[in-house]
Parts: sequence; structure tokens; C-alpha cells
Amino acid sequence: MSDLYWPGDERAGSLMSDLALLQAMEAVESAWLAALVEAGLAPASARHPVRGLVGADDLDALARGAESGGNPVIGLVRLLRDRLGPGEAARWLHRGLTSQDVLDTALVLTLRDVLDELDRQLDAQTQVLLALVQAHRNTAMVGRTLTQHAVPTTFGLKAATWLTGVLDGADLVSSARARLAVQLGGAVGTLAAATELARLQGADDPATTAWRLVTITGGALELAGLAPWHTSRAPITAVGDALVSCTDAWGHLAADVATLARPEIGELAEGRGGGSSTMPGKRNPVLSVLIRRAALAGPPLAATLHLAAATTVNERPDGAWHAEWAALRDLGRRTVVAGSQTSDLLADLRVDPARMRATLDSATGTAAEQQSMADLVGGQPGDSYRGVTHLIVDAVLDRARTSRTKPPSEETR
Amino acid sequence: MSDLYWPGDERAGSLMSDLALLQAMEAVESAWLAALVEAGLAPASARHPVRGLVGADDLDALARGAESGGNPVIGLVRLLRDRLGPGEAARWLHRGLTSQDVLDTALVLTLRDVLDELDRQLDAQTQVLLALVQAHRNTAMVGRTLTQHAVPTTFGLKAATWLTGVLDGADLVSSARARLAVQLGGAVGTLAAATELARLQGADDPATTAWRLVTITGGALELAGLAPWHTSRAPITAVGDALVSCTDAWGHLAADVATLARPEIGELAEGRGGGSSTMPGKRNPVLSVLIRRAALAGPPLAATLHLAAATTVNERPDGAWHAEWAALRDLGRRTVVAGSQTSDLLADLRVDPARMRATLDSATGTAAEQQSMADLVGGQPGDSYRGVTHLIVDAVLDRARTSRTKPPSEETR
Amino acid sequence: MSDLYWPGDERAGSLMSDLALLQAMEAVESAWLAALVEAGLAPASARHPVRGLVGADDLDALARGAESGGNPVIGLVRLLRDRLGPGEAARWLHRGLTSQDVLDTALVLTLRDVLDELDRQLDAQTQVLLALVQAHRNTAMVGRTLTQHAVPTTFGLKAATWLTGVLDGADLVSSARARLAVQLGGAVGTLAAATELARLQGADDPATTAWRLVTITGGALELAGLAPWHTSRAPITAVGDALVSCTDAWGHLAADVATLARPEIGELAEGRGGGSSTMPGKRNPVLSVLIRRAALAGPPLAATLHLAAATTVNERPDGAWHAEWAALRDLGRRTVVAGSQTSDLLADLRVDPARMRATLDSATGTAAEQQSMADLVGGQPGDSYRGVTHLIVDAVLDRARTSRTKPPSEETR
Amino acid sequence: MSDLYWPGDERAGSLMSDLALLQAMEAVESAWLAALVEAGLAPASARHPVRGLVGADDLDALARGAESGGNPVIGLVRLLRDRLGPGEAARWLHRGLTSQDVLDTALVLTLRDVLDELDRQLDAQTQVLLALVQAHRNTAMVGRTLTQHAVPTTFGLKAATWLTGVLDGADLVSSARARLAVQLGGAVGTLAAATELARLQGADDPATTAWRLVTITGGALELAGLAPWHTSRAPITAVGDALVSCTDAWGHLAADVATLARPEIGELAEGRGGGSSTMPGKRNPVLSVLIRRAALAGPPLAATLHLAAATTVNERPDGAWHAEWAALRDLGRRTVVAGSQTSDLLADLRVDPARMRATLDSATGTAAEQQSMADLVGGQPGDSYRGVTHLIVDAVLDRARTSRTKPPSEETR
Repeated sequence: MSDLYWPGDERAGSLMSDLALLQAMEAVESAWLAALVEAGLAPASARHPVRGLVGADDLDALARGAESGGNPVIGLVRLLRDRLGPGEAARWLHRGLTSQDVLDTALVLTLRDVLDELDRQLDAQTQVLLALVQAHRNTAMVGRTLTQHAVPTTFGLKAATWLTGVLDGADLVSSARARLAVQLGGAVGTLAAATELARLQGADDPATTAWRLVTITGGALELAGLAPWHTSRAPITAVGDALVSCTDAWGHLAADVATLARPEIGELAEGRGGGSSTMPGKRNPVLSVLIRRAALAGPPLAATLHLAAATTVNERPDGAWHAEWAALRDLGRRTVVAGSQTSDLLADLRVDPARMRATLDSATGTAAEQQSMADLVGGQPGDSYRGVTHLIVDAVLDRARTSRTKPPSEETR
Repeated sequence: MSDLYWPGDERAGSLMSDLALLQAMEAVESAWLAALVEAGLAPASARHPVRGLVGADDLDALARGAESGGNPVIGLVRLLRDRLGPGEAARWLHRGLTSQDVLDTALVLTLRDVLDELDRQLDAQTQVLLALVQAHRNTAMVGRTLTQHAVPTTFGLKAATWLTGVLDGADLVSSARARLAVQLGGAVGTLAAATELARLQGADDPATTAWRLVTITGGALELAGLAPWHTSRAPITAVGDALVSCTDAWGHLAADVATLARPEIGELAEGRGGGSSTMPGKRNPVLSVLIRRAALAGPPLAATLHLAAATTVNERPDGAWHAEWAALRDLGRRTVVAGSQTSDLLADLRVDPARMRATLDSATGTAAEQQSMADLVGGQPGDSYRGVTHLIVDAVLDRARTSRTKPPSEETR
Repeated sequence: MSDLYWPGDERAGSLMSDLALLQAMEAVESAWLAALVEAGLAPASARHPVRGLVGADDLDALARGAESGGNPVIGLVRLLRDRLGPGEAARWLHRGLTSQDVLDTALVLTLRDVLDELDRQLDAQTQVLLALVQAHRNTAMVGRTLTQHAVPTTFGLKAATWLTGVLDGADLVSSARARLAVQLGGAVGTLAAATELARLQGADDPATTAWRLVTITGGALELAGLAPWHTSRAPITAVGDALVSCTDAWGHLAADVATLARPEIGELAEGRGGGSSTMPGKRNPVLSVLIRRAALAGPPLAATLHLAAATTVNERPDGAWHAEWAALRDLGRRTVVAGSQTSDLLADLRVDPARMRATLDSATGTAAEQQSMADLVGGQPGDSYRGVTHLIVDAVLDRARTSRTKPPSEETR
Repeated sequence: MSDLYWPGDERAGSLMSDLALLQAMEAVESAWLAALVEAGLAPASARHPVRGLVGADDLDALARGAESGGNPVIGLVRLLRDRLGPGEAARWLHRGLTSQDVLDTALVLTLRDVLDELDRQLDAQTQVLLALVQAHRNTAMVGRTLTQHAVPTTFGLKAATWLTGVLDGADLVSSARARLAVQLGGAVGTLAAATELARLQGADDPATTAWRLVTITGGALELAGLAPWHTSRAPITAVGDALVSCTDAWGHLAADVATLARPEIGELAEGRGGGSSTMPGKRNPVLSVLIRRAALAGPPLAATLHLAAATTVNERPDGAWHAEWAALRDLGRRTVVAGSQTSDLLADLRVDPARMRATLDSATGTAAEQQSMADLVGGQPGDSYRGVTHLIVDAVLDRARTSRTKPPSEETR
């Protein structure tokens, strides 16, 4: 999926789409139905894969139906039962679940895909940045503070700060990923219906049997089993904060590129650059612009997730939960798109060391601080003034190599 | 268009869709091309309606192409020229315009449809609320502050405060609607290309001729002509603030309904109510819930519009402008959906005066303030304690009748 | 008042301070007490000015007490009664009011001072900008879009877009100012206690007498009388949106200055510029930086006001109302500070037409669009390429002269 | 410090005050000066404690001066040098630092106090909640979803979800606390001035010597030494997200209390409750109201921190960094205040099991789901319907006991 405003590559675009969510909801129903059978609560004849029964053509009808029920799950269950046809599978589908179980767990599945994709993007960006830092470890440029020339720095150090941001984002993505778990609790988060079924079917310890449904379902979906978190939304806000931390890092990087790509500065350029509808020959730093857009638009969406968490009430709130969906979806998809654009930007970034050198040489006042140090102790200014840049660069390179090294099997997934 | 999260009725759903925007962009190109001919800059042979040349099937390709150019207009112009085929129309299409002209003016066209729909919704709500206020002018209920029972009020007064919110929203919608205008300025907002064309074609006063293109195009699109506002985004933030002011009013109303529909209170109920996927017979105040969702999610989007306006720089900013599109689109569509839900909610709201009366009679402490007034001057508490409710109600009714009365021709549109 | 983070000039700093609010609350109690006497509800012996009874030394105690009551009014009334001493004034103080009446109306009084100060600032800025636009009507400079050189424009036109933003802000400030009114309704917004007092004191028409209290109090405070708007917060969100619209306009202006003051561009400079703690001779565009800060931090605060409005419930909400206070205070004070900084920035802005000319002359590609127009019709590019800049400039100048012209009596206040 | 709007207890109030920040800035200058001596760069005669030289009386002047320099450090250094009097200490003070070093590290020091206080509050809340969960493990109550009665749950489980929120918040507070480090890099983050000093003073390895200054200063301030993060603001956004996650958890808890304390429900009550300025006898859930306020106002402030991080550019940005200060300060102080209020609320919460029981018994439709399970398999509904509540409760209790157990030495701090 893509839209006119937030296009992206094909892979990025399909994540968090309506269709992806629909398929995830179907997968949750399927895994739960299988768990009911596996735990001995539903008869073996209820075992039936629930896959491919609904698709893109059903989205409009489900969407319209979602208004009357408040969410799309009621309509989906009806549709799935209808398409499963008469029999035990249709009878047992969704038994013990509530709408929020299905929607929350399906959202988690789509978020997992988003976080996994981000993890790959951040890995790739780390590799490119490692090379960039090493290549420009000694590329001198003027440092700029509050828009004005300050003292010298190196482009290697600048790239190292970008890399630090990417690694910070990756850490949060990993943490949020590790917290993802099924959210399955039935009507009010007690698994009462599932427990009652277990009792009715003669289980020795009905509660433990009901709990097994959660772990079995989690296993099938490759998610952790966890106590219901229907009213404790920290797993959701952690994802939102991680996503925004990625766009923070990329936004910083893109702001640097857009600024240094100004024709009067000209120290960086995007490899291709975008054209104009009326000015032939104009080359715009389009990727930087689009990344900055995502960085500006993201934080308010993450704030919506926190507001939703903070206004949760009772065993399911009257609006707060519903406000999460679109914020998560938009944030997820846009972050992946911005990540893809950042990878493209880095892969094709043009660095102009000669221009950097020229700016530095012609800048006025950049030696004043150095002179004031010499004055302080009565010595002569030294030849260079790069301070500990190489130590910082080494520390960042070490961190990057340590934290993002994956065993080969991981690399090839 | 609708999506799995923000469904709505058919009319609401199609506003602000990708297709609506695409068609609006085509309409802008068409009107400008006609203006070029009408002003004598392009030859009569360039006169060609540009309508229906692109459609839903083109959205994906245009979206993908939008990434390389930073916006979908470059691809659209190419596509339209291709489909117009060889000839003057294709040659003259888009001459004098820049991407932002087309996208901004197209957004204005879609926003106009949104604001007009909201105006109709707010009118309809006003009518229902007028009747509700009058019907319950004397329906006593307990006032509640900080969740606790306070002194008596009437449901008529409560409905009058809802009506006040609706009228406040309508005023802002009208103001924002009145400010909508074309945004046409060429590459940097000077109409230089159009003026140059006028000069080349021998116009006596090239600048005035170029300016005529703006007014002609505005006239064809039924929008005001205005100086380019590419970097002065107040018309956009005014729309955002107006939309959010509507959801503020509806959110307040929905919070009242959701609260008073709690079974322990039971003074209000939604006519139909939504069902549950697992609990037979449960009736949820689904419309209130969905309206509250829109009210929670809207303000951060309006904040994004202000952030975009505030970080505008140069003759087109490097990200801020791009951040407007999705915020506007989401805000516009969701507001119309919430408005439709509010209309439905009001049309079918159940009021239980007997339950209100019973709560009031059984509430403790509601007479304490009245007694303290009697103690102050040494008299006896009076029979009623409704203060100036009828005066306030009359004032609100007057405002509603005055401000929303439209001539018959308007009513029937 | 000022703080370490948001300093400002003395006038700006004192607006919206804790002390200003305290004095405003005292003024509301004073005006209401006088109205009770004037309307014949309280005895003449209750007439007593309530002014100067509390001051800066009381702030800490009132603040601490505010936690137990949820707002500072309960403690204030106790303190005022104590300091009035035994007698009718103390007995009649606050009779018929509730805490929210006092706090809301006091906030309105402080907001009025903020809006009046902004009006003065915007007027002054308009005058400076009028001169700047006229002086640079023909100062050519390169237009920049997406960071890159585009086609020529003039600095006069750029200043005219800044002026448009200032005028847009001024319009909203005026509208918000016009909506300010007392908020007086008693416990649940019905004026029941006041009406009961009127009945007990033998008024012919108790409700009308109670209503007179509102208009008398409003008159004394120089505010409109209006029906209680305790749960319809549009007057508050209108102020917030107006304030943010001002910082939008100033943020845009400051972004232009900060960008064009980069040493590589050097077309603009702040008159003084700020220094560095370690780099002698460095001159930073400090005012632009501080204005941009306000522009970034404002929109989320205005969003909080909308969220508060949208989650209002019952006759006083359980948190939403309380969230307004700090957002309004911070937004109000910071906007005035940013306005003062913008006035300073404009008053001392350095424009370098020669540098602008040099950039334009050396920019590549700026003639390509003009050439493509000539190619289109087979002519020769003209001498200039400034389009309708003079028409736009004239239109903005006209708007400025018309909208901000005040009669002399207004000018001299 | 406290203000009229956000009062709090004395300890909470003083954190993040202007004075606390001023003292922290002084502590940073003091530690750095000592490090210069210890590392052998400054002479022993420069060793001088910098403590108590500035105080509350200096705040106004420093604030006013902050406008011209863009931050308060320039004025502070001047003031400190003046008060140190002639001599080596004044000469060496601040050598090698830049304003941002001092302000960032001072902010970190004040944030550390905030996070440590929150850690204590969350610990105390955990203890109270552990007892509450255990005491009400079997207290049955009706579950409520979308405002309506659903199926039974227990108050113990509800309290366990509150506890989960508190533990989630504590985890993030710990993580953010662990990331706090000095931010010391000189003019552009290269420690060039310090390195130059080391060279001039004959250090063998000037860069390593300069780096030692960072670790020595960090050691003295009990903060980690870390590479300069002047343009990588993840440590700051991590604090903001942690703070908001705390108010999320408390807001959820307060929303439950405020709702269940409604007189029609009456299942919970605040121990004391706040009074009214006009209605004798009214008892409001004031703590819940004030906590909800903080929960509503916090997320937009955390969004401002992300926006600042995302718009960072060059070696110090032109506004984004400055926008952090007030957002951090407000968020920090308000979170501590809300934490203190939450502790008070929990310590004195009234639970009414009889009322919970009565509501549950009289609720209609709560057995429908259980009956549908019996119908599914042809059995009889069981006696209870509490599902796995005891398993979930046990899991939460285990987590609480494990994660928050501190060694005795920690407990007594």
C-alpha cells in the first residue's frame, strides 16, 4: 500500500496497511482456534486453518461495519464464520476472545514486522555510516553553532554523531521489540470464558488450561505470552517512542544534509536529487526534505499514544483505545518509509572535502578560541585544533561494531 | 474512501481521499490552462478540458513517483501531457505554475468540500439541538462537578451548552471557509513565468495580465483570487483550528453522553448502541466512543499544521510544507466522519427525565448551598433552585436561530 | 516576573505571572462584591474595595493550599475574608460565585493584558515592516525553494510575506480579544445562588436581577457579560490559536533571518547579535534563535487547550479544566516575550542588498525557467523576471494601512 | 519552589526550580575547575570551591541577561568570576567549556534528582499496591468496558494492573537514569580548547588528558563520563518518555478512581477529598483530578523534546536546543508533583467491597457470556466466573517483588 502523500518502496508500503492488519487479525483467530483444539477444549473437528478467507475486497464492507460495533472485529468474525461454512470450526471460532484481543494482538503482529524492518534498515545504515566515519575521520570542516562558524571539526565526527543517533534508535527498537507479546484476556481481561470452557470440558485445573491457550497462541504467532495488558499500554507507547526516536535521529541527519547542501555551502549533496515541475536543471535534496517531514509529523502522533494510555479507564476505555489504532498505523508506516529514504540518502551521499576545506580556510574567527588558550598560558597556538575527535570517533565505532554485530544466520534472514 | 480504522458513511468517506485530491489537482491544471487561453497567452487550440484523464488506477504509480520529485505533481503533469497527446494543450499545460501551486490549490478545493459538508452537518445538528433544548427546558437533573453531585440544573441547559459548542464550531468553519483562496504564484511566488509569457505575447501590462490568470482560475474553481500565500500558512492553520474546534464541541457532547449512559447513571442512552463480539445483549455507546476518539486524536494534528507554518523558510521550506498534507487530510476526513457520527448520535439520543429526576431527588447535599443563602439573609429556601437557566437557554436559542438561519435557496442545496 | 529560561523585558515578564493572576482574582471578587451591593442584594455596609489585601508574599501559602482544594480560590477567599475583618464585606464576599468563576474570569483579565500587549507589538511591527517593504521593493535577491536557488524575487516581497503573517496574527488576536468575557455562573453555571439571594431579598424578577450581577461585574472589569461558558471552552482555545498564530508568523520570519544570516549567505544580520562564552568575536542571531524556540514550543501547548476543551464533561470536568491554566499561562507569557524579541529583531535588522545582488548574479540555473518560456513561444527572454512582485507588495501595503490604522486616541494609549 | 497552578509538597516543589538549576550550573563550573587543576592544566592556585557564590537574588539579573546571550551561562560566568575576585580561580573558571556544556550537564543534575525522587515514589507506591492487591485478591466487582457492565473481575486484579503501570514506569525511570551522563565537549563538541591547553601545558597525550577532564568532572558530579551528545539528544528524550510513562500509569489509576468515586457508583473514594468554595459538605476526588491534569498536559511536552531532537542541526541548533529547557523543567517538576499526589491517593484510598458486590449482583447481562459457553458445549454454568485472575495477580506480585527489591543500604537512603 502507498498513498499519494507518503509513498515508499513496495516493502515499506505494505507494512501497516489495512490488508496487513486484516490478515493479522485472521492469523490471530486461526492461532486461537488451533489452541482451543490443542488444549482439548474444542473438538479435533474444529481444527481448520483460517487463512485467505478474507482479503482486500472485504475491506470496504468491514470498514463500514466497524462503525456500528466500534471496531472491525465483530464483522470479521461474522464473515469468517460464514466463509468457514457450517461445522465445528465456525462454531468454535473466536470462543473465549473479545474484539480487543484480536485487534491488539493483530496490531502487535504488524508492529513486529515494522520493528523487524526497521532493525534491518538500521543495520544497513550502521554499515554505511561505519564506512563514512572511517573514510572521513580526517576530513576537516568548520563547526557551526547557532548558524555561525565556530571552531573546526571533522566530517567523520559529524557522521559519528549521526551513527550515535542510529544506534540509539536501534536500541529502543530492540527494547520495544522484546516487549511485544500477545494481548489475550477475553471480555474484561480475566480469560473467564476460556476458563469456563476448560471447566465445562473437565479440565483438572481450568485456569491453568486457559492460560495454556495464551502460551500456545503466542507460540504459534511467535510472540511472547504475557498477562493481558488491555489497560496497561506501556508496550504500545514503547513502540511509539522507539519509532519517533528513529525519526529524531534521521531528522537530525537530514537537517544537516539539507543545510550543508545549500548552494552557498555545498559541502554535501544528495546523489540524485529531485527535479522541479517548472525549473529545468534544479536538483533538490528531496530525500532530506521527505525525511524531515516524517520527523516533524511523528512526535505529535506518539503523544497521542501517551494520551490514550493516560486516559485509559475501566476494563476498556471509551475512546482512548480507539485513538491508538490510526496513530500507530500512521507512525509505523511513515517511520519505515523514512527509514528507507534515509538508507537511500546515505547510500548515495556526496561529500565534498575540498569545499569543506575551503570554507574552513576562509572562515573568520575560528582561531580566536585557540588564541585565547595560548594567551591564557603564554604559549603559541598549535598546528591543529581538532581536540579529541579521534577518541570520540573510535568510541562510536566500537559501539557500532559491538552492538550491531549479528551472527551470520541473523544476517541472512 | 474509508479505512479499517476510520470508517464513515459514503459521503464522508470520499472527502479528502487520494482520488479526491487527484481529481482536484486535475481541475486546477484544467482551470489554469483555460485561463491561459482566455487571457490570450496560449492559443485557442490549447483549449482542452482536462478532466477524467487520470483516475484511481493511476494512484499507485503517481505515489511511487512522488518520492523522487518530493510531491506527486511532477508525475501528474507528465501523465496528463501524455494522455492529452501531441498538440497545444499538452504543450501549454502547467505553464507558469509550480508544483506547490497545484497541490496547495487542490488541497484548498478538497478542504472546501470538507468545510461545506461540515457546515451542513452543523446546521442539521443545530436543528436537532434546538428541538432538544426546547423539549427539555424544564427537565431537571443534578449538576455534577469534579464527578460529584452539586446543585440542580436542567437537561435543557446542558443541551444548550452543547449547542453553544456547535455554533462556536460553525462560526470558525465559516471563517476558515471564507479565507479559502487559490494559491498560485509560480516558482517562487512572483508569477514571473506567467508575466514573462504575457510580455512575450505582447501584453500591454504583463503583470496585470498575469494577475488576471489568478482571478480567472479562481473564478473557474469558485475560489477567491488572493496573492500567493505559499509561505504564509494562516489559511491552512485556520482550517485546522476550525476542524479541531468542531471535534472539541462534539467530544464534550460525547463525553457527557458516555458518562450519563453508564448503567449506574442511566440518564442518557444512544438509540441503537453497538454490540459485543462475545457478550450477547451488551449495548455500548459506540458513537460517543468513536467521536471521543476523533476529539483526542485531532489536536496533535492541528499542532503539526502550526509547527509546519512556524518552520516555513525561504520561498518553499524543506519539509514543513510536506508535513501539512497528511495532517490536513487525516484531520479533514476524520472530522467529517465524527460530524456524521455526532449527527447520528443526536438524531437518536434517548433522554430519561424520570431517571434524572430520581437521581436529583436522591442526591445528598444538593440543597446545602441554597440553605447557606437562606442563612445569610435569614429567610427560607425557595421551591426551586434553577437560577437563570431559562435566560441562558433563551439566549442560546436566539443565537442559534439568528446565526444559522439560511435563505431557502441555501437550505435546499 | 521572568525565569531563567524565558526571560524578557519587564513589561512582557510581568504579564501572566502568578502575582498578576492573584491580583486579577482579587479584582473579580471585588467587582462581584460591589455588584451585589449595587444590585441591592447585599447591604451598603458590605461595600468595600477588595484591593491590595493579598500580594506576592501570599503566593506560596496559597499555592500549597491549592492542592487540597484543587484550585487556589478556596484559600484566597478564606484569606480575603480574614483580612477584611469582621463585618458585612467579609460575610458577602464571594457569595453566589464558585471557584471556577473567579479563576476563569481572572484568567480572562490576564489574557486581555496579553492580547492588548500583543496588539501593540503587532502594530509596531507593522510600522517597521511597512518601511522595510517600501525600502526594499526593488532589492533583488534569489528565491530559494527546498534549500536550492530558484528564480529571482525581491527582499521587499519577502518582507511583505512577513507582514502578511503579522497581519494574519493581528486579525486573530483581535477576534480572540473580542470574545473575551466574564465567566460567572455559580456552582453549576445556573447562577442559582445569586438568583436565590435575589428572591430572598424580594426582587421582582430574581433571575433578571441575578443576571444583572453578571453585567455589572463585567462592566466594572471592562469585559463583556456573557452566559456562563464553564463547559464551552471556545473562548480559551481561540486565545491559544491566536497566540500560536503569532508565533507561527514570527517563527517563519526568524527562520528566514537565521538562514540568511548564515555566514555563507550573509544577506541579513541581526543588529547586535549575541556573544559566546568561549569564542571571542562570535556574533549569533540570538533573537531569531529565541523566537524560533517559542515557535517550536507553542503548538503543543495550544493542543493541550484543545484537548482540555474536548474532554470537558459534566458541569466541571475532572482534570481537563485544570490542565488549561499552565498551558495558557506559559503560552501567554512566552508569546509576549517572543513578540518583544521580534520587535527588537525588526527594529535593528541589517539588510545587505549588495550581497543579495551578488548571490543572484552568481547563482546558476535561475534563468532556465525564463528561457523555457521564451522557447515556448519563440521569443527572447526579457530584461527582468520579477513578475507581479510590485502588485503583491502594493496589495499587502494596502492591507496593512487599512487594517492597522487606528484613530489617534488609540495610538497614544 | 511552587506556583499557583502546580503546587506540591516542599521536596517535590524544589526540584527543577530556577534556583536548583542555578546551583547545578555552579556545581558544574566548580567540578570542571577542580578537574583542570587535578589534571595539571591549571595551577594549584586555581583550586577554589565555587559554591554559594550565586543564589536566588541573582536569578532576575541572570534571566534578563540570558536574552542577549541566548542562555544564562554567559552572565553566570561573568558573575562567578567577579565574585571569585582577582586570581587564578577566576582566570581558569570555565576554560575549555562552552555554554551548552554547563547548561546541559546542569540539567542532567537536576533531572537526576527528579528521577531519584520518582524512584522513591514508585517504590513506595509499589509497596502500597502490593498490599492492596493482596487484600483485595478476592474482592469481586463488575468489569466495565466502553462504560457498560461486562463480566465480573476483582478489585485485586484492577489494582494489579495499576501496579503493572507503576512497574513499567519504574523500569523506564531506571533506564533513563542509567543513561544520564555529563555533556562536555567545548565549542563544537571536540574538546579542542581543553586539548590545546593540555598541549600548551606539555601533556604527553593532550587528547587523553582532555578526555580525563570529562571523567574527573563526571566522577565529582557522580555522573558517567560520555562522549559529547550535544547534537544526539536521545538521553533527553529518554527522560521525557520515562516521565510521561509515569503520568500515563498514574493517569490511568486516577481515571479509575475518579470514575468509581462517582456517587452513583461509589466503589472507591479518596480518603480526604477536597472541598468547594460554595457548596458545604461536597467532597471532590481532588487528587485524582490533579493527577489527571498532569497526565493530560505531559505528552505534548514530551513531543516538544522529540521535535527538538529531530530538528537539531549543525553543532548547535538555532532554536531546537533552547526549546528543550522549559519542556524538561515543566515536565520534571509536574511529574514529581503528580507522583507525590499519587502516593497520597494510594495511601488513603477507600475501597468499598460491599458496594462492589452490590453493583455486581444487580448488574444485568453479566452472566450472558458464561451461559453462551455452557450452551456451546451443553453444560451448566459454574459457580464463579473469575477466570485466571489469581494467576495474573500472582504474576504481577512476583514481578513487583523481584524488580523492586532493593538491598537494605538502598532502602535507607
